[in-house]
Amino acid sequence: MPGGVTAPRGFRAAGVAAGIKANKGLDLALIVSEMPAQAAAVFTTNLAVAAPVVVSREHLARSGGTARAIIVNSGCANACTGDDGLQVARDMAAETAALVACPVEQVLVASTGVIGVSLPIDKIRRALPDAIRSLAADQGSLAARAIMTTDPFPKEAARAIAIGGRNAAIGGIAKGSGMIEPMMATMLGFVTTDAVVPGRLLDRALREAVDDTFNAITVDGECSTNDCVMLLANGASGAVVDDSTYGAFVGGLTAVCHDLALGIVRGGEGATKLIKVTVTGAASSADARRAAKAIANSPLVKTAIHGGDPNWGRLIAVAGRAGVAFELARAAVTIGTVVLFKDGRPYDEAAPLAATYLKGRDLTVAVDLGAGSAASTVWTCDLSAEYVRINADYRT
Amino acid sequence: MPGGVTAPRGFRAAGVAAGIKANKGLDLALIVSEMPAQAAAVFTTNLAVAAPVVVSREHLARSGGTARAIIVNSGCANACTGDDGLQVARDMAAETAALVACPVEQVLVASTGVIGVSLPIDKIRRALPDAIRSLAADQGSLAARAIMTTDPFPKEAARAIAIGGRNAAIGGIAKGSGMIEPMMATMLGFVTTDAVVPGRLLDRALREAVDDTFNAITVDGECSTNDCVMLLANGASGAVVDDSTYGAFVGGLTAVCHDLALGIVRGGEGATKLIKVTVTGAASSADARRAAKAIANSPLVKTAIHGGDPNWGRLIAVAGRAGVAFELARAAVTIGTVVLFKDGRPYDEAAPLAATYLKGRDLTVAVDLGAGSAASTVWTCDLSAEYVRINADYRT
Repeated sequence: MPGGVTAPRGFRAAGVAAGIKANKGLDLALIVSEMPAQAAAVFTTNLAVAAPVVVSREHLARSGGTARAIIVNSGCANACTGDDGLQVARDMAAETAALVACPVEQVLVASTGVIGVSLPIDKIRRALPDAIRSLAADQGSLAARAIMTTDPFPKEAARAIAIGGRNAAIGGIAKGSGMIEPMMATMLGFVTTDAVVPGRLLDRALREAVDDTFNAITVDGECSTNDCVMLLANGASGAVVDDSTYGAFVGGLTAVCHDLALGIVRGGEGATKLIKVTVTGAASSADARRAAKAIANSPLVKTAIHGGDPNWGRLIAVAGRAGVAFELARAAVTIGTVVLFKDGRPYDEAAPLAATYLKGRDLTVAVDLGAGSAASTVWTCDLSAEYVRINADYRT
Repeated sequence: MPGGVTAPRGFRAAGVAAGIKANKGLDLALIVSEMPAQAAAVFTTNLAVAAPVVVSREHLARSGGTARAIIVNSGCANACTGDDGLQVARDMAAETAALVACPVEQVLVASTGVIGVSLPIDKIRRALPDAIRSLAADQGSLAARAIMTTDPFPKEAARAIAIGGRNAAIGGIAKGSGMIEPMMATMLGFVTTDAVVPGRLLDRALREAVDDTFNAITVDGECSTNDCVMLLANGASGAVVDDSTYGAFVGGLTAVCHDLALGIVRGGEGATKLIKVTVTGAASSADARRAAKAIANSPLVKTAIHGGDPNWGRLIAVAGRAGVAFELARAAVTIGTVVLFKDGRPYDEAAPLAATYLKGRDLTVAVDLGAGSAASTVWTCDLSAEYVRINADYRT
């Protein structure tokens, strides 16, 4: 189904320009549920945690996992901003709560942008009434645009699901696009559903969905200070998720998260190709994920694929240094469907075929570690000169 | 003192063109000691270990740690080449042994270049007599050039040391310049000395010297399949290293390795700046090294410094996700001598000063983790669009 956070019933959203971004673009997003929603969230594992993450965690704890609104700004991360920054995040929530007319602990806060710069609360205070006035059930895509920083395009996804004979929806928006290797989660993601989901199942579903989607992507191996994925379930559809319908719900939720996560990779800084990295033959799932992440973060692999060079030796070299069980004599590398290394010997004569395949934009590379039967898949993008350009003068 | 591997007495070297490199440049280096030398070596920890590493390890074991010659080719790594590649590495050693007139196990072998491509033993066989004829005590710099791949300049270093009233010398050559994060060691290094060093002390000295030099550098976080540092001590000076003079020897050896290692970083692929990353306030030495490596490998830090952007928030963000003890409220970031973050609050107004400092070519950035008193220093280079260009079409 089309749409994003406002696809499920009972949610409205807005995106306005508060003047935080120097270019005067949209930089303040507001998502409001008509009724208190059950809320779950996962946050960055970075120890240099940003002020909005601190405040959102507190509010979730104090509200017993319920929320009415999410207020998000782009253009400034409000991270490493000390006690002043913490006060700004609290003020952001309080101002929103006053206008939405809900307890302050039912407002979640998120920020994204430059680290270490003060977030001007006055600009947010001035823009908030405009955001409240603009709230509408068809404005989800403006919210998706308002949370963007270096993202080349907005990320929205939605799915209709049937739960116990009733129809419900799940929708979400997300932003990337640098400092991306969610552990969870190097980005912002906001997902809504009109299903009725008990807190226990909502938490579990979010963690499950995130593990194979947002936590299985990397742009540059960097876990940010502000990452979070928040999920609100307001029950407006009347479709009740319980243990028997949990599978359908988590399936739909994973599909939405998958679309958003892959959108982040496709829109990764400087990215020209989406690369699916599959590792098989691992001694454990943890080994498989670790090797896949190492390959997906390797600048030599990412530049080779950027240049369309089937330099499979680099894939083997990364697998060999990834700190996981690896048997060279039983290892294999496949690019697309072209086998380039197998049973300890090269098939370099197939390289031209692989080079032709690498001209595409949606690519798969597979490495078998030859050490077991576990597998993992991770998505990444190529590393281009444009990534360097974007990040060499991000602040100037 | 000037010179490289032939600075110590009793060593001769040669660099010739065997036709392995497509551009017909120098690609075969030979280092010979006039008398059997005590030998020590450290090799890559990559599990996808190259054929020459396998053979050199075997030879060191069989010869009881003695060697007469090192034969090295560039242009082909002889890695992931299966049983055929192993035979080529053995043949390389055997041909060299026959011409030097020594047991085959006294020949060490090394290769560097593309992975997965067969090394043409015929070309080496044809070029070896020429290399033997060219051997001279003033040809160390040709050997330094013959081991280069994408290196922009050769790396040589030497030191005179006084050991128990006698003068000895230590000299070395090394090559980088991509797939560089020695664990030990993502590159080739060959060091010679005319001191008399018992095997036990030679091993210990090499490991000690390497730990703070070759193992403290990174260009792109990639540990290769072929890395090694080999050290030959032929005793020609008569200066005897024992427990009482060990300090002087390891000091000189560390100085030579330091120069070579920093040369590798300065000549890193696409590098325009040398960056010294110092981490203090760590809970342990291991934490300090881990955080320093994480910062030194961060594409966001490396691109920011490339662009002269004092984006100190990225340094904090990496420290926070490095998996080490970290206290934001006690952490600090200093670029050059400019403090940009301290005691949990930013001093972003000093950013222009730091930006001016970053216009230089030899830079220091320091992060205090606020979690203890251990420290570590790591050297890296910036990440430029040129790195992408080099690695996007390395094989084409």
